[in-house]
Amino acid sequence: MPATDLLAIAHELADLAARKTTRMFRTRLHVNDKSRGGLGGGAFDPVTQADRAAEQAMRRHLARRCPDHGVIGEEFAKRDGAGLYNWVLDPIDGTRAYMTGLPLWGTLIGLIDGPTPVLGMMDQPFTRERFWASRSGPALWRQGDAPARRLKTRRCPDIGHAMLMATTPDMFRQPAKKRAFRRVSAAVRMTRFGGDCYAYCMLAAGHVDVIVEAGLKTVDIVPLIPIIERAGGRVTSWTGGSAMDGGDVVATGDAALHDEVLSLLRG
Amino acid sequence: MPATDLLAIAHELADLAARKTTRMFRTRLHVNDKSRGGLGGGAFDPVTQADRAAEQAMRRHLARRCPDHGVIGEEFAKRDGAGLYNWVLDPIDGTRAYMTGLPLWGTLIGLIDGPTPVLGMMDQPFTRERFWASRSGPALWRQGDAPARRLKTRRCPDIGHAMLMATTPDMFRQPAKKRAFRRVSAAVRMTRFGGDCYAYCMLAAGHVDVIVEAGLKTVDIVPLIPIIERAGGRVTSWTGGSAMDGGDVVATGDAALHDEVLSLLRG
Repeated sequence: MPATDLLAIAHELADLAARKTTRMFRTRLHVNDKSRGGLGGGAFDPVTQADRAAEQAMRRHLARRCPDHGVIGEEFAKRDGAGLYNWVLDPIDGTRAYMTGLPLWGTLIGLIDGPTPVLGMMDQPFTRERFWASRSGPALWRQGDAPARRLKTRRCPDIGHAMLMATTPDMFRQPAKKRAFRRVSAAVRMTRFGGDCYAYCMLAAGHVDVIVEAGLKTVDIVPLIPIIERAGGRVTSWTGGSAMDGGDVVATGDAALHDEVLSLLRG
Repeated sequence: MPATDLLAIAHELADLAARKTTRMFRTRLHVNDKSRGGLGGGAFDPVTQADRAAEQAMRRHLARRCPDHGVIGEEFAKRDGAGLYNWVLDPIDGTRAYMTGLPLWGTLIGLIDGPTPVLGMMDQPFTRERFWASRSGPALWRQGDAPARRLKTRRCPDIGHAMLMATTPDMFRQPAKKRAFRRVSAAVRMTRFGGDCYAYCMLAAGHVDVIVEAGLKTVDIVPLIPIIERAGGRVTSWTGGSAMDGGDVVATGDAALHDEVLSLLRG
């Protein structure tokens, strides 16, 4: 399937998910308290009706549009495909932001071809922002019906000038991880918590320099990798390996800063 | 001056400030590193061109529209008025959010009559949301050109179900404050960092139950008091006194929960 068709499908998925997620945003939610360790073992991990409805809508669409492709979703079991294409779906990344009414959650849509991310998309329907990139094209952003604009990370040659983000300090409950995060936090100019997927998009857009997180799931990060990389940034595990499996992840807007952050994390 | 005129002036101020703040949002900013202790002594406290331009625009408008009124602003010296009315302006509350591209900052506009808040407004021009209340009217919210809707806090009879917010854990660097915050955090269902003024508006809208913060300035909180109170919530200092002077502040959506939170803060 040509890359333009795959990208068209991703946009269709984001539109479908937005109808489900916006309908229930800022209403009284029915919440299942399902702990799955995503934000630290045993932490409160809300899953909303909207989360499930959006993933179901996207899965139904994929079953019609590309029945040969596999699906890895946050809420339901993996569907194996006939080939190497697998869609990676996180209908509401940032469920805590969603539940507290903050427009920093997003619908994440990725596509991998074997081990390689082919495209990634983050859609925030309340602010009407969409961020996306395919493997060889530019990283793009648009708001509402305005034309898409190119995303580009900014240079940050000195870590002392860097702005660091992480979704929550509760990610670093293990003492070794807490110390590692603190080493980075002590080196940068400013640390800000509370970002979820939105933070990675702000890194791609050149407003954030470093993101350090722990305990991510595959679906939390895979759809963001093409956006970060095609905007000029770098994203790996804390040990410099692939970020594809989630876990402990670090992203830098200025790729030249990446090794220094990895070195601080090692201690 | 009748309350409707005062409210009209507040809307004019928010419109004027929005023109300045949106122009520079998500651009490369010229930042003055001015530490004033707002987020903990010596912390990085960015002040942007937008911050100053917005406050100057609002001050010029007030000098024309109500030259007898005083002005207490975040960026420039107090202007004394002829009477008891003082406008309280924070052109960009949440400068860290602003600098990292997150749409959680806001323009805060308050009016006090002697010691009494007469009206309060929070404007977030990127999401096109405005929250406001006057002393005797309802708390209201509107987005874009849609009709205003009433804000109402939600009931939360059990602190174990509460959602707690604070702008950053760095507010609680003093060990006693850190312990106090932790006692509240341990009692609630979920803690989320990174909210600034937006969090108080989400409390007024019934999505957040408790906010505990430290080291606020007067301009950070005064414009939010009428919004919280007219939506059904309560806001005081950690010791139960007035929140008007800033400092250590606690807000609850369900006023019946307030004493329990104060008691946890006391330890």
